[in-house]
Amino acid sequence: MKQTNIKDTTEILDAAYLKELEVFYSDKLLEDTLPFWFPRSIDHECGGYLFMRDQEGTLIDTDKAVWIQGRACWLLATLYNTVEQKEEWLEAARIGYEFLKKYCFDANGKMYFHVDRQGNPIRMRRYFFSETFAAIAFAAYAKAAGDLNIAAEARHLFGICIDYANGAKLIEPKYEPTRPMKGIGVPMIMINTAQQIRETINDPRCDQVISSCIAEIEKDFVKDDIRCVMEQVGPQGEIIDHIDGRTLNPGHAIEGAWFILHEARYRNGDPDLVDLGCRMLDYMWERGWDKEYGGILYFKDVYNKPVQEYWQDMKFWWPQNETIIATLLAYVMTGDPKYKHWHQQINQYAYDHFHDKTNGEWFGYLHRDGTIAQTAKGNLFKGPFHLPRQEWYCMQVLKEFSSIKL
Amino acid sequence: MKQTNIKDTTEILDAAYLKELEVFYSDKLLEDTLPFWFPRSIDHECGGYLFMRDQEGTLIDTDKAVWIQGRACWLLATLYNTVEQKEEWLEAARIGYEFLKKYCFDANGKMYFHVDRQGNPIRMRRYFFSETFAAIAFAAYAKAAGDLNIAAEARHLFGICIDYANGAKLIEPKYEPTRPMKGIGVPMIMINTAQQIRETINDPRCDQVISSCIAEIEKDFVKDDIRCVMEQVGPQGEIIDHIDGRTLNPGHAIEGAWFILHEARYRNGDPDLVDLGCRMLDYMWERGWDKEYGGILYFKDVYNKPVQEYWQDMKFWWPQNETIIATLLAYVMTGDPKYKHWHQQINQYAYDHFHDKTNGEWFGYLHRDGTIAQTAKGNLFKGPFHLPRQEWYCMQVLKEFSSIKL
Repeated sequence: MKQTNIKDTTEILDAAYLKELEVFYSDKLLEDTLPFWFPRSIDHECGGYLFMRDQEGTLIDTDKAVWIQGRACWLLATLYNTVEQKEEWLEAARIGYEFLKKYCFDANGKMYFHVDRQGNPIRMRRYFFSETFAAIAFAAYAKAAGDLNIAAEARHLFGICIDYANGAKLIEPKYEPTRPMKGIGVPMIMINTAQQIRETINDPRCDQVISSCIAEIEKDFVKDDIRCVMEQVGPQGEIIDHIDGRTLNPGHAIEGAWFILHEARYRNGDPDLVDLGCRMLDYMWERGWDKEYGGILYFKDVYNKPVQEYWQDMKFWWPQNETIIATLLAYVMTGDPKYKHWHQQINQYAYDHFHDKTNGEWFGYLHRDGTIAQTAKGNLFKGPFHLPRQEWYCMQVLKEFSSIKL
Repeated sequence: MKQTNIKDTTEILDAAYLKELEVFYSDKLLEDTLPFWFPRSIDHECGGYLFMRDQEGTLIDTDKAVWIQGRACWLLATLYNTVEQKEEWLEAARIGYEFLKKYCFDANGKMYFHVDRQGNPIRMRRYFFSETFAAIAFAAYAKAAGDLNIAAEARHLFGICIDYANGAKLIEPKYEPTRPMKGIGVPMIMINTAQQIRETINDPRCDQVISSCIAEIEKDFVKDDIRCVMEQVGPQGEIIDHIDGRTLNPGHAIEGAWFILHEARYRNGDPDLVDLGCRMLDYMWERGWDKEYGGILYFKDVYNKPVQEYWQDMKFWWPQNETIIATLLAYVMTGDPKYKHWHQQINQYAYDHFHDKTNGEWFGYLHRDGTIAQTAKGNLFKGPFHLPRQEWYCMQVLKEFSSIKL
């Protein structure tokens, strides 16, 4: 198979459309999304950020979700590192970093999921997502601040994440050992964590982590015979024919697809990775795109049986964000007009239905038919991450294209 | 205040309407709901019941939710005890009782939440709802079978539930101690557990448990100043102004209302309890009834801020079941035509939208606008409980009315 990357496809891409998109995503990020959150969300009194806000920005809760504190710190430092060295972004990243470091670890070094405004712990969960986002936040902030000590802290956290992911460090399981299952979420988050650390402070473990996680996804979760990416499987990739085992999360699998396409881009267009990422996108677009109303559905059953999770046919903001990235990346890396068409479809659906034209940013939760289910812009699960990351990532890809084209 | 009970209100009630309802609920229970589940759900091979079924009855999963195994065993034994001494109901109850006893307890006597078809454990949860439903199942089956040993087992389980409820026995908490909260679910389930045990095998602890739980609900959860029943509060009944603390569950509070009206009925129309139950119903009908589409909404915020739970504005089957019981009971106990009107409204909405005219039983999950979100009749959370209990309970109340009237 021919190696494909942005350099190779430049001549067959629709340059005018991509230029238009570059301006679109850049404007949305800098003039619409970021101004909704900053500077007002910085908590100068207690540290960290106050993100639980209603549509027009009023606070609905002063609590702080640790993973979103980490994600926002990562975003601010990343903007500083890659878009413009604005002092206000660096300073805001510092405030998040210090809150995370000071309040969000328990005595054993495990990170909380949820703390109050002052940093008192509310809830510990049996996941290590707080750690993965803190690791990339610390790494990005270490680069922005040029601080080697913070880089060492990021590497330490990255090591803890690796230990959790490979089982060297155990988290109390939610399930009995009767029917072992593993989720695609762990290898996915480890790819993203390692990629972000590599792009900021680098670490000798990154390439190996990424390669082994991609291999695990391809071997155990991607099912070419039924054109599907599973969300959970048995230890050897077995499909588990029970409600949980059959439940697919198309937006999540599509996020995994673009992590792999991003790796292909890093590896100068590695054709096997382009092929894998595009297959994952193809399979889950087919299963997740709502042909009746548009947008990516939340959950589907692999055999089209009823899904148990109540919100299964709602449209959440983040699966749309991941699909916007994946379709754009697939288009610029392959030149296949199918992906341009999909990108146009998802971009139009998402900005038509989720974008709050009055106050900026996106609503998070729509009914299947596209009507708004609730108005919060931020809560324990939503904050300045998927949308600004999507707008930032697309802008960066399109800038790369522009610079080659010129 | 005047003591009110069915005897007192007989003359002012709409007897023709109530007779029509008696036939309606009896027919629905015996000709429509029960035949959907039985006999096909009895697992003669492995014991217990196979309830995870799609709309027309095909099995979507062979797993068994322990609380629903208990609820179904309770239902079958209760039908035997109160409706007709059918051998098939007694035998089906026995099969559930034996599965619960043999497979659903861990080595420490704590009950699982979820087991597989053979009874191998899948998941333990930090709740004691499996225990409360097993307690009433064992009690009802002990009465049906006339077995004093099983009655002793039920009493033992009831004692464990009491210990969990009052903190003598601890369950590992999900939250850190920073912001203590308690839910209305514990006193509610204890009222119902004690009422069912009292009505089957009786136990000297029942009246005291019921009285203290009702007192706790009235003191800490019912807020007359804002016409509201809280779902969670601080230890002294404080409203906790964070997302979780503000989240109301109207159908759940209305279930609590009818447990209290049921207690009033048992206590010969205790006017304070009638008043308390009716206030709870009034407050949560006002907050939970969807004036636009009809039906009881799932969650509301006490101050009408955005609710975090994704399915907040969906219509689930069980809040409708609880509201059908509560409005009927309020009507027959007070004679207030408002409750007759509400009962007509909720009965019509529910049987129009949830009832599966083709296959019997109800769909479980509707979108806010009444369209069907998914077709499963049974899963980890839905089985033969709320709907048949509602039809059975209403039928029993209406039979009592008929017998007084005659």
